[in-house]
Amino acid sequence: MKPFGEALAAEVRAKRSPVVVGLDPRLAQLPQALRDVASGDFMAQARAYREFCRAVIDVIAPLAAAVKPQAAFFEELGPDGMSALADVIHHARRSGLVVILDGKRNDIGPTATAYARGYLGRDGKSAWGADALTVSPYLGADSLEPFVEIARERSAGVFVLVKTSNPGGGLFQDLFADGRTVYRHVAAQVEEFARVDAGRDYGSVGAVVGATYPDQLAELRAAMPHAWILIPGFGSQGGTAHDAAAGFDSAGLGAIVNNSRGIIFAYEREQYRHFG
Amino acid sequence: MKPFGEALAAEVRAKRSPVVVGLDPRLAQLPQALRDVASGDFMAQARAYREFCRAVIDVIAPLAAAVKPQAAFFEELGPDGMSALADVIHHARRSGLVVILDGKRNDIGPTATAYARGYLGRDGKSAWGADALTVSPYLGADSLEPFVEIARERSAGVFVLVKTSNPGGGLFQDLFADGRTVYRHVAAQVEEFARVDAGRDYGSVGAVVGATYPDQLAELRAAMPHAWILIPGFGSQGGTAHDAAAGFDSAGLGAIVNNSRGIIFAYEREQYRHFG
Repeated sequence: MKPFGEALAAEVRAKRSPVVVGLDPRLAQLPQALRDVASGDFMAQARAYREFCRAVIDVIAPLAAAVKPQAAFFEELGPDGMSALADVIHHARRSGLVVILDGKRNDIGPTATAYARGYLGRDGKSAWGADALTVSPYLGADSLEPFVEIARERSAGVFVLVKTSNPGGGLFQDLFADGRTVYRHVAAQVEEFARVDAGRDYGSVGAVVGATYPDQLAELRAAMPHAWILIPGFGSQGGTAHDAAAGFDSAGLGAIVNNSRGIIFAYEREQYRHFG
Repeated sequence: MKPFGEALAAEVRAKRSPVVVGLDPRLAQLPQALRDVASGDFMAQARAYREFCRAVIDVIAPLAAAVKPQAAFFEELGPDGMSALADVIHHARRSGLVVILDGKRNDIGPTATAYARGYLGRDGKSAWGADALTVSPYLGADSLEPFVEIARERSAGVFVLVKTSNPGGGLFQDLFADGRTVYRHVAAQVEEFARVDAGRDYGSVGAVVGATYPDQLAELRAAMPHAWILIPGFGSQGGTAHDAAAGFDSAGLGAIVNNSRGIIFAYEREQYRHFG
């Protein structure tokens, strides 16, 4: 099985698009027909989420390189939501999409290993079978290592939060210590992991860098030459295509751009009625 | 319904113990009888985890103030593991224990809200129904606010990671910026949230501070006078009772101490055969 970096690059080239479609289902934004079935209990709502996400996957599979299910919206519904999430992940993989689960998990040593084993699939035996997972860096390098190791073993991927797209993201990330910001310290660690197995097409380790900060995106592209960059915040969070451009290398590779609400709730605009 | 802080203090007083029993089930450490049933598939293993945790809960309910299920070990088993987790949470609550789910979740605004709504129960309609949740601070104050707000609304609790007990925890947490460490910056934010609704018995917002760093525990007790401190790393991770003492106030309150492997795998020692 191809390493994650190569597999993702192949998808981006095949689809001629670096777009990652976020799967962030929310009750209030579902099409009316699904919203009606979903009302009442968690199980009905989970069924509606699953149906909606499967429909989105079927529409976008030929066009997008990857999907990014947001774990929180499924978790909100309890065990029924988690079953829907597992089904959505499997459906996306069967549809030829790279699946990056947005769970922002982490913990210390053996616990991080449990998360990594559970979520990272590809050629390993994993209960969830995602191709990659987003992880949080606060606990340090030894908390990231189990994810990196298991990703390598299984040809899967890891995206570490470096610079986030929310207005308050700078509170701790922008603190200046030992000559550079905290997010640059995190970026240095990500690059150290990434360069180990990055070939021509980047490796198994990437970073999450918000598109609402284009200067920092350019800075971080340069600081992490071997890391995939996943750029959220495109579209509804205020980032523009021009802002995201700084995340790509000179060959137009190395970054993937997430658009969630702008794509999956497109039916709300007059011209799209796929799910109406 | 009592605010979380009061409810936790009442349990600590009633049980005359600040001990939180970690529920961190792992296959290799289950009693042989359960290990035999658990082999094969995720569903069987999830059933064994549920049975084991319920047995632990029944034994420790009269003695401990709270339990801390570790989400990762259940998540590793996929949707079956999540169903077991939901059952374990409900069983612990019915047994009169405060349930602190160790999920270390976080994300930006609306996504953080989904996690908070899903996990924080008490007097709200929540799919999981935990009394409190651990959360990670890297994304800043605006990512913590939804947890704090929903915790207050529902008389539930939040524990923010401040200083973790793993050997590499200092990589980013100990960076020195603007005259203090990153973890002190996080502590200042936690205290700002905590003091708002802390009464005589602390409020709905707490911090996670590892017992492997007793000096920092004393420093952080002083820096966050209104925050509960959850101390992991006691026992198998190297912390001692003496190390944890610095987390308590002069009345012996304000901290709860987690012991996971030391308690729940006690059957491995000759003198305990509860689950053999």
